[in-house]
Amino acid sequence: MRPITKIDIITRPEKLEDLKTAMNKIGVTGMTVTQVYGCGLTKGHTEVYRGQEYSVNLVPKVKIEIVVCEVPVEQVLEAAKKACHTGKIGDGKIFVYPITNAVRIRTGEEGDIAIIDPADMPK
Amino acid sequence: MRPITKIDIITRPEKLEDLKTAMNKIGVTGMTVTQVYGCGLTKGHTEVYRGQEYSVNLVPKVKIEIVVCEVPVEQVLEAAKKACHTGKIGDGKIFVYPITNAVRIRTGEEGDIAIIDPADMPK
Amino acid sequence: MRPITKIDIITRPEKLEDLKTAMNKIGVTGMTVTQVYGCGLTKGHTEVYRGQEYSVNLVPKVKIEIVVCEVPVEQVLEAAKKACHTGKIGDGKIFVYPITNAVRIRTGEEGDIAIIDPADMPK
Ligand SMILES: Nc1ncnc2c1ncn2[C@@H]1O[C@H](COP(=O)(O)OP(=O)(O)OP(=O)(O)O)[C@@H](O)[C@H]1O
Ligand SMILES: Nc1ncnc2c1ncn2[C@@H]1O[C@H](COP(=O)(O)OP(=O)(O)OP(=O)(O)O)[C@@H](O)[C@H]1O
Ligand SMILES: Nc1ncnc2c1ncn2[C@@H]1O[C@H](COP(=O)(O)OP(=O)(O)OP(=O)(O)O)[C@@H](O)[C@H]1O
Ligand SMILES: [Mg+2]
Ligand SMILES: [Mg+2]
Ligand SMILES: [Mg+2]
Repeated sequence: MRPITKIDIITRPEKLEDLKTAMNKIGVTGMTVTQVYGCGLTKGHTEVYRGQEYSVNLVPKVKIEIVVCEVPVEQVLEAAKKACHTGKIGDGKIFVYPITNAVRIRTGEEGDIAIIDPADMPK
Repeated sequence: MRPITKIDIITRPEKLEDLKTAMNKIGVTGMTVTQVYGCGLTKGHTEVYRGQEYSVNLVPKVKIEIVVCEVPVEQVLEAAKKACHTGKIGDGKIFVYPITNAVRIRTGEEGDIAIIDPADMPK
Repeated sequence: MRPITKIDIITRPEKLEDLKTAMNKIGVTGMTVTQVYGCGLTKGHTEVYRGQEYSVNLVPKVKIEIVVCEVPVEQVLEAAKKACHTGKIGDGKIFVYPITNAVRIRTGEEGDIAIIDPADMPK
């Protein structure tokens, strides 16, 4: 089994569409989106969201979870950095984790083939 | 310390009750549920949710996180596959991760015993 | 690169403020908060939330995700245990994971320095 990796991207909600487009282009086949609150804890930073200033205290963010196998992790990082970058405080963070197994519930497939889009597999 | 494993199940919201029952039967002692949006990115798949057709674009799903130690991971996967299966596109995915430590806040217990239900432990 | 660790804390929503204060004191530079539902599955435990009794069945909880590098994991566990402890059923759980990489999107920094607050770095 080829290694499977999970990538969490925490970024501005208004960047979700660009991120989806970017992931689509590099062949990512699925993602899971959660509404979260980001909380910066230090040193009086502030962030602006929809014209309102937050004391970096529970600013609305989205978390995007992406599990990949064929698509190289570095390619996901590069594409995500580009899609989510504004250069202003609060652009977000990316975290990378090892995964030990994956299952596609519909078919029962386990391991790396559970991640690959069936439409991409040799017939 | 015996190994501790986290299992994320992303599935249809209407399967949550069946999944809870199935986990209960095999001795899983807790789970954490998050409302998420699933986003399939490729090839014009569509999914139906509550009679409405989605372009596999932010379909409501639930994510269930389950941490186990005594209950074998394979048993969780089998029970979850059975409980969440419909055979239609969008049944969901399961991801398995290694965990390095766990704590029960009420008692301060760390490691594998933080996962075991106290009611199951020898007196 | 020094090791990077993720810590998930699942606890009572009313403990979020105390937890933030505690994390701030030990130098944690960010956290991500998600509203979740905790689901205890066994043995007729009950939990009280805002005066209402729940059958440990989808009780509102918060999940706090904290990624650290410089701050020792044991210090986060100790501070979180103290901040979230009431001694009553349902105080919560902490889970610890290894992380293989991190990125700060604004600057493109990767690895341990993506976690450290720039204000803390030598100029
Ligand atoms: N150490 C951390 N642990 C968990 N989540 C974090 C951490 N740091 C940041 N986050 C999450 O990522 C979101 C975005 O972080 P942010 O972009 O502010 O990171 P940063 O390192 O402060 O970078 P910047 O200096 O550009 O603001 C936060 O709102 C929070 O949800
Ligand atoms: N690679 C992935 N990374 C992260 N989340 C994913 C991934 N693939 C699927 N998911 C999540 O799981 C949910 C259900 O996935 P889904 O059942 O559609 O998987 P699938 O592989 O497309 O299988 P099917 O062919 O049966 O539709 C998605 O809506 C999404 O939330
Ligand atoms: N094994 C588990 N897997 C995933 N999440 C869990 C697990 N156990 C607990 N949780 C999450 O943590 C929350 C709080 O758990 P809780 O404090 O009730 O743990 P506990 O072990 O039952 O301790 P206590 O005996 O003090 O109630 C739960 O509502 C659930 O969201
Ligand atoms: Mg910041
Ligand atoms: Mg699908
Ligand atoms: Mg409990």
